[in-house]
Amino acid sequence: MASSRVPVQLLKSINGLNSSANAFRPTFIAAYHIQSAPTGRRNFSFTPSHSAVTEFFPQKETKSIRRTPPAWPHPVYTYEQMESVVVSHRDTKNASDKVALLAVKVLRWSLDLVTGYKHEKAAALNEKDPEAARKKYAMNEEKYLMRNVFLESVAGVPGMVAGMLRHLHSMRRMQRDNGWIESLLEESYNERMHLLTFLKMKQPGWFMRLVVLGAQGIWCNALFFAYLISPRTVHRFVGYLEEEAVITYTRQIADIDAGRLPKWEKLAIPQIAIDYWKMPEGQRSMRDLLLYIRADESKHREVNHTFGNLDQKDDPNPYVSEYRDLNKPHPTKDLVHQKPTGWEREDII
Amino acid sequence: MASSRVPVQLLKSINGLNSSANAFRPTFIAAYHIQSAPTGRRNFSFTPSHSAVTEFFPQKETKSIRRTPPAWPHPVYTYEQMESVVVSHRDTKNASDKVALLAVKVLRWSLDLVTGYKHEKAAALNEKDPEAARKKYAMNEEKYLMRNVFLESVAGVPGMVAGMLRHLHSMRRMQRDNGWIESLLEESYNERMHLLTFLKMKQPGWFMRLVVLGAQGIWCNALFFAYLISPRTVHRFVGYLEEEAVITYTRQIADIDAGRLPKWEKLAIPQIAIDYWKMPEGQRSMRDLLLYIRADESKHREVNHTFGNLDQKDDPNPYVSEYRDLNKPHPTKDLVHQKPTGWEREDII
Ligand SMILES: [Fe+2]
Ligand SMILES: [Fe+2]
Ligand SMILES: [Fe+2]
Ligand SMILES: [Fe+2]
Repeated sequence: MASSRVPVQLLKSINGLNSSANAFRPTFIAAYHIQSAPTGRRNFSFTPSHSAVTEFFPQKETKSIRRTPPAWPHPVYTYEQMESVVVSHRDTKNASDKVALLAVKVLRWSLDLVTGYKHEKAAALNEKDPEAARKKYAMNEEKYLMRNVFLESVAGVPGMVAGMLRHLHSMRRMQRDNGWIESLLEESYNERMHLLTFLKMKQPGWFMRLVVLGAQGIWCNALFFAYLISPRTVHRFVGYLEEEAVITYTRQIADIDAGRLPKWEKLAIPQIAIDYWKMPEGQRSMRDLLLYIRADESKHREVNHTFGNLDQKDDPNPYVSEYRDLNKPHPTKDLVHQKPTGWEREDII
Repeated sequence: MASSRVPVQLLKSINGLNSSANAFRPTFIAAYHIQSAPTGRRNFSFTPSHSAVTEFFPQKETKSIRRTPPAWPHPVYTYEQMESVVVSHRDTKNASDKVALLAVKVLRWSLDLVTGYKHEKAAALNEKDPEAARKKYAMNEEKYLMRNVFLESVAGVPGMVAGMLRHLHSMRRMQRDNGWIESLLEESYNERMHLLTFLKMKQPGWFMRLVVLGAQGIWCNALFFAYLISPRTVHRFVGYLEEEAVITYTRQIADIDAGRLPKWEKLAIPQIAIDYWKMPEGQRSMRDLLLYIRADESKHREVNHTFGNLDQKDDPNPYVSEYRDLNKPHPTKDLVHQKPTGWEREDII
């Protein structure tokens, strides 16, 4: 199919950029220009304007196989629950917590440097000189997507490393694991689904791929040794990382609501996301997708802060355990009882 | 509860050893003497003589938490299906297969050396001099358990390493995985359940623990690099390893049937196994347990031989995919369609 390489809808929204009055309206920067890969086949999806999504890695179909469903079914989130997810911060209580928070701050600073994400600075400059702020700092759809792709490509590592180490530890030390591995692997799978979803919307260039490659190598090793030294600190660290993730996605949702990301307003989201989150018809906008992803991040935030509060060797995983008192709120995989700063050990064990 | 340290039933079977007429009847060797740990609490299990099982790592119960169920529910196997599992061998078809088979042979030879498992030699000597054979080679319950513990402690590694590498690969190369990770992690979980089950029956001493520790270090690294170099060869290798596992458990079942392992005839199996395999009441003997474990190994054999037949990068995992033609036999997680040498690519993709 030799169809137009740049989808009409995308071009329209790009042309429409200059009419936006907002200081943070998307600025079309050459470095982040939209890449539209030639698609090999016509897309028969019923979702309108779905053709704007590049067929980066199509769902595998073969002579015999119809489809391969997701490994871990996603829990059902209600709209009300997702809207009630809030930005939050757990105070540091000891040296281990402080190390974890410092590490997150250093990482955030580095990531902001690489992806040019400077919301606060931009807001400050905007107060004084909106025109200068727009030119210098404006986040747009492409910058956000690039940031998200990077963020999610590293987010899938800690759960997998921790799960593997706990698996090997259980066999080596001949002890039960009490259910932790399951949640850790599931978390890493969920993060990989986030990544695959964003990749469907933004095919990264060679520079981005190189950054991801290098980052994974360093990151994977760092987490491996950190988890061997202090699993509790790593869980707290991931808890703080996820606090940042919730902030990032909350900001993107707010930017959509403020009309700063017009290209996302009509963008059809990829089928992989609709299938994975079982998104109901009529609630499949980019904003809906970000609500689901933010809710996932809030769950990781809660799970890891909770794990950071537990005895790493002896306590059962509260997220996969059965409780004696079913009427008392307790940790769950869905969003029924939200505890942004994690559950305290004495309340659940 | 200051109850008898050596359970009565176990003592009985030890005393009964000398009356067995079989050349391979268990010889009570000092090095493998039965260890019975003092249990801290009375066992209220309904299964008779359950107290013979040491409470090595009791199911975790806390103030709030009743129990932590297994992460991956085990598929249901019928008795008929389990009895129809057969020893089998897939012929090598290329250089990669030959390397895989050679590696398994070297490993088997080393393991036999360490655990003193020499069935063929023993059988040959038994023809000539039964008395000498008994003294030199007899496998008994303790030797088998020790062998099984070691075997299972390494068996849980390949699936986890392969799953982790495919997960990282998917994120790093920004490609779908098409469902392989799921089966690989599930396999490693299943193997860890085998290990925990045997550990409930045999608490290893410091020497065994040291061997497991060292073996895991070497084994884990070797598999890591091997999987990076040639995932196909590693899957074939695991396929061949599992052929051996099926042989080992088939032999143990045969030895029970021939009356060579009297201590196992009345041994109650641990609760962890009853829960995991959902073993029906009245079918909870050691023989039943070995039938389940052997069936699991036959499934790993099939899965890994099948994976070894596929395109490692592009093919979907046939064990978690939906098929167009549901009437045609296809790979499943349970034992419905058994293919000991794996499914050929052209039949399923
Ligand atoms: Fe994420
Ligand atoms: Fe996350
Ligand atoms: Fe096994
Ligand atoms: Fe196995």
